[in-house]
Order: sequence, then C-alpha cells, then structure tokens
Amino acid sequence: MANEPLLMIPGPVMLHPRVLKAMSKQMINHRDKAFSEIYDECRSTLQYVLNTKNDTYVLTGSGSCAMEAAVSNLVKGDRVVSIVNGKFGERFRDIALRYGTVESLEFEWGTPIDLKKVEDALAKGAKVVTMVHNETSAGVKNPAEEVGRLARKYDALFVLDCITSAGGDLVEVDRWGVDIAVTGAQKCLGAPSGLSSVSVSRKAWDSMVKNPPYYMDLKKYKKSAEAERSETPYTPSITLFYGMLEAMRIIREETMEKRIARHRKGAEGVRAAMKALGLELYPVTDEHTVLSNTVTAVKLPGGVTDKDLRGTMKSDDGVAIAGGQDRLKGRIFRIPTMNAFTEADMARTLGSLENALIKLNALDKGKKNAGVEAFRKVFNG
Amino acid sequence: MANEPLLMIPGPVMLHPRVLKAMSKQMINHRDKAFSEIYDECRSTLQYVLNTKNDTYVLTGSGSCAMEAAVSNLVKGDRVVSIVNGKFGERFRDIALRYGTVESLEFEWGTPIDLKKVEDALAKGAKVVTMVHNETSAGVKNPAEEVGRLARKYDALFVLDCITSAGGDLVEVDRWGVDIAVTGAQKCLGAPSGLSSVSVSRKAWDSMVKNPPYYMDLKKYKKSAEAERSETPYTPSITLFYGMLEAMRIIREETMEKRIARHRKGAEGVRAAMKALGLELYPVTDEHTVLSNTVTAVKLPGGVTDKDLRGTMKSDDGVAIAGGQDRLKGRIFRIPTMNAFTEADMARTLGSLENALIKLNALDKGKKNAGVEAFRKVFNG
Repeated sequence: MANEPLLMIPGPVMLHPRVLKAMSKQMINHRDKAFSEIYDECRSTLQYVLNTKNDTYVLTGSGSCAMEAAVSNLVKGDRVVSIVNGKFGERFRDIALRYGTVESLEFEWGTPIDLKKVEDALAKGAKVVTMVHNETSAGVKNPAEEVGRLARKYDALFVLDCITSAGGDLVEVDRWGVDIAVTGAQKCLGAPSGLSSVSVSRKAWDSMVKNPPYYMDLKKYKKSAEAERSETPYTPSITLFYGMLEAMRIIREETMEKRIARHRKGAEGVRAAMKALGLELYPVTDEHTVLSNTVTAVKLPGGVTDKDLRGTMKSDDGVAIAGGQDRLKGRIFRIPTMNAFTEADMARTLGSLENALIKLNALDKGKKNAGVEAFRKVFNG
Repeated sequence: MANEPLLMIPGPVMLHPRVLKAMSKQMINHRDKAFSEIYDECRSTLQYVLNTKNDTYVLTGSGSCAMEAAVSNLVKGDRVVSIVNGKFGERFRDIALRYGTVESLEFEWGTPIDLKKVEDALAKGAKVVTMVHNETSAGVKNPAEEVGRLARKYDALFVLDCITSAGGDLVEVDRWGVDIAVTGAQKCLGAPSGLSSVSVSRKAWDSMVKNPPYYMDLKKYKKSAEAERSETPYTPSITLFYGMLEAMRIIREETMEKRIARHRKGAEGVRAAMKALGLELYPVTDEHTVLSNTVTAVKLPGGVTDKDLRGTMKSDDGVAIAGGQDRLKGRIFRIPTMNAFTEADMARTLGSLENALIKLNALDKGKKNAGVEAFRKVFNG
C-alpha cells in the first residue's frame, strides 16, 4: 500500500510475508531432527546460491561475525593482504588487523581496484587475501574472478565477502576459487538479519589455525554438522532459521538465473532513472569499473543536503532510502535493488525521489516521472 | 491443547503468543529511532532483571557468544580461575583457555563447589574468576554472593553466567559485585534464542584488554550505545529484538518478585513430585547444596533407559523433556521450570512422566497422579 512505509535500504531488506509468517512459529528442540532438516536445507540452498560444493555453515550472528569467523580461523600472525575500496573492505581489514600482519591495499571508495597492485602484494607472500565482492558503501562490484586467479597463482587463500551479492548477483565460489565465502542473511537472500554463513574449501580446512575465537570456531561447526544428526555447536536462533528456510525456498522457486536477471535489470533501471533526472552516479567510472547490481550510489545534487532529501522522501511519501556512510555521509544517497523488490516498489521510490527533488528546487517540474519512466523501460525491456 | 507438542527443555523455552506475534512484524532500519527505543527498553529491563545499574548490551549471538565476549574483553594471557561443576562451567573454562592461563577448579557435576578451594586459588592472584550461576546440566545453583565476596577480597573480576537464572531466579549483580553478568534470551527471560547480553561494571571497563574479537568488542557496543541515538555496532537481528521487547514487557507486567516466587514454587513442586514418585534427584545433596529453581535433574530409575522414558513421553503424549548431557547422558532426565510455564503445563508433563514410568514397569499403577498431586499441592500452597 502506498501509505505503508517502504524500507529501501541495502539491508535489512523488507521480508516476504511468507518469511514473516514463518517466524511466528513456536520453538522446537534444536537437537531434534526437525531442526536438522531446516539446517540442511538452508545449507544446501546456500551451496546452490554460491555455486559451490564446499561445506557451508550458518552462524547465529550478523555478517561481521561470519567475516571474523573467516579471518580468525585462517590467520594467526600470518600476512594478510586486504583490498579496500569502501567501508566493508575497511571492516575486513580491521578484523584482519586483530589476527595478523596486514598489507592494506587502499583505493578511494568506489574506484576500481588495481590488479597490478594486488599481484605485487601477493607476490611478496601472503596467507590470505580479503576482498568485498559487492561494496555496498560505494555501489561497485569488485573483480572476484581475477583476484581468485591471483590468489591461486601465489598460493594465498581467498576470502570473499559476498554479503550483498549472494542471492542477487552471480557468485561462483568454486570456479573463482573462493576459499571462504561469507554471506549475510538480510540482503539479497531475503532472510532476517541475525544469521550469516561461510562456505569453506578443502584448502581452507587444511590451513586452519588452532584456537580461533570459540564461538566462531569452524571446526566445531563442521563437527556438529557431521554428527549423526546435523546440528549447530551452540543454540541457534530457531526463529531466524524458520525465516531463512522460507527465504531459501523462495529463491529456489524463482531460480537464481531469474533472480540475477531481475536484480541486474533493477540496477540498470535505477541507473537509467538517475540519468534521466540528470543525477550523477558516485563511482568513478573508467574501463575497469563494474557497477553493483544490488545497490546504486548517487551523488547528492548541489545545494541538496542528505537530511533534506531523505527527510522529505520519508516524511512526504514514507519511503526510506539510504544515505552515505562514514566519509560519504552527506555526499551520496543509495538505492538498493535487493531481494523481493517489485516494479511498484521501485516506481514508488523513484517517484518519491522526483517529488523531493522538485520540492527542493533541484529538479524541473517538467521532469516529473522521467525517472520512473526510464526505470520501467529498462526493467521491462 | 493437550495434543499439541509441549516443549519442556531448559531452553529454548516455548514462547508466549505475544512474543511470537511480535516476530512477524516487518523490518525497520536499525539506525532509526524506532530501533533505538526497542534497544533501550530491552537494556533497561535487563538492568531491572539483574538488579544492576551497570551498562548492559544485547548481542546478536547465542549465550556462548556473550560468555566469550565477557572473557575475551578481560583476559589476554592473564590468570583465570574457572569454577566447574557442570557442562557450562566447562564451557566457560574452555573459552578462558583460549585467552589466558586457567586454573580449572573442578568438582563432580552437580556437587557443591568448595569455597575454600576457590579462596586458595584466588589468593594466588587471578585477574578473573568465572562461574555459572545456575548449572542447568546438573540442576544446581552456585553461591554467587560468596564467590563475589572472595573476588572482591582478592581483587579479581567476577564473571558470572546467569543464562539460566536471569528472569527466573534472584540475580543481584550490584550487591554481589558481578563485573560481567551474562544472559541468554531463550531461557527464563522468555525471549527467542539468538540474543544474549552482558552487563559491565566500572571495574570491568577499567580492565579491558586491547583487541578482543572484533564482533565481541564491548568497547564498540558501549560507543554505539552512547551515540546520539543508541544503536548496535553491527546489524542486529531486528526480528529477535521485536520478540525480546515483548518478553521484557511481560516480565515487567508480572514483576520479578512474582516471577521468582513462581519459578521457585514450580521447582519445589517438581521436587515434591519426584519424591512422591520415588525418584531420586541427581545432585549430591549436603549442607552446601542449593538446588536450581529453574531446572530439576533426576536420576533415571533402574532399568529405564533415556530413550525409553523420553521416547515414550514424546510419542504417547507429545511431551518433550530433556535428557542428560555429555557424561550425564543416559543417567538423568531434566524438567525445567522456566519462563511462562503454567500449572497445566507442569501437570501434563508430570502426568506424562507417570504414564511412561507405569508403561515401563518402573512405577506402580496405584501411584498414578501422585506426582501431579504433589506438584499441585506445593505450587498452589
């Protein structure tokens, strides 16, 4: 309904009514078969989403918990190369700093990473290279396949944050050689926040350190998952698993192929809308730039503050989009195309953006609907 | 309804319909005021439950995550005294072993701890002493007040696991001098599994180590909670917070005073029922023994296997009680009195136990209802 709030931030995403309904079910014993079945179905669907045969485990914790699980199980004083071109790349680096010696390869947020520099850093020898696949903070996608190739060449373990790509964009863990892929539930997977996952390669298993943090000890997850009846080492959030199971089923029903196509068209449509409204994307685009298919980052037009724009959209139309984070605060706004978004959601969001820009004298009245129409044309094209 | 499954395990507990309903609400932005209000109400209710003015924080993670947060923020190579008389005491020790040098003070599961030995260990100097307040695995309560006194005497930090006492039994964090008290949501608090909390004293803040695990870094929780608008450092599970908020309100409505009395009578009633049925409690009772008010551990009668007893109760009556864990597997069964249990729940559970024992030739037919009646007499007395 037009008057209900529309949450259009890059996670937590709005959840499908089926997912919400599932979460009002009564508790079961997490050591019973009924829970094992839920756990296993979630894990096998994650394998489908990530295109991997690697073991996957679901942690009760947010994406940062799984990011730290990945790093802390592989690194103890070892050298890590962390690729940083946004807020979440920084987070991965900050986590790595707690466990190893880190070479932080920094590129301005939203600019393409320089593969030559990655190769130089790996050539010096590193146990692990960390990268964020889809950098939500800046609206760009990083070259996972290419970095995977370099990691193999220099025998480093490749740890990839797929938190905002998995379920919405193509992730090929096995083909790219991702040793640990991290996901979060509340983005393109359409599941509730509070669960995250890791997939673990054979090579990663062979390289595990002793005594990582207890709660994140992946060997314990493996042992529990391989018990007579698969389970989690610590009490899982049963409610969230109910929600995740339903989200996984929705993904299977739609198929990843159609899902990726829908996300891609959604993002292309938003970009077309921005162009039609005379707005500039944030990422610095050169021949290496790959824009994100799950979130679009846009520069705030001159004279319009973040508070004005997002405040007006929210108060006038009930539409909540995202602002910039940290150094991009007050400089950009972000529109996600994640999970179950529909043409109507996007039209409402873009229509609200147009209304606000007109009200703030940042868009000519004659341009009303230009963004929405450009979106529809691409999305339905 | 009599035919619906009745989950009677010491967590996850069955949730109140209000809690379940709350968890089917749509997502909100975790950086908005609406979330801050939920977070703050949960935190202040936890202070009420724990009788403390200390800061409290809610982690998206299960109880083990909060246990590790407590230890890992205080210990880096330091000496820790871990008091162990059950499975969860062992867990605390195992966590401590990853961060410091541990003196493990071990007592047979379910036997009272020896305060003299605790004093001797603390007299040698220790930064931290860990203990489990209510040892669910064995049905005993440990002397928190006395250990708190010893901790102060020898200037050690007192870390107490209140996961299965908070919300159901008296916990006096400030009076006992608990520096970090840990709770879990899915026990006597009546909230969904997947959230946990810590309360942190001034002294604990002054003793924090550098660079604990990133996801558990309490300084980050403090900073986020003290921001202009209180928030969590990482994306919280919004769904679980909806549930927890409702559970916290139910606690306020009942009042802790009445809640503790109800739990106490529930456990006393179960003990009376066991006596009436000729069953023996598991804990070794001497003058130091304090039995748990939230779970009762009972020896399996001779000739009855765990599978027989719990299997019969489940298949015949849909009642699921808990067995023993680890070394107590096959030796005991456990009946919780946690959260919203009613007289009817307990009568159904005890009636099912009687039925199963009679069926398994471990109880005289004439004793049918003896347990239920003994329970009712105490519970309503």
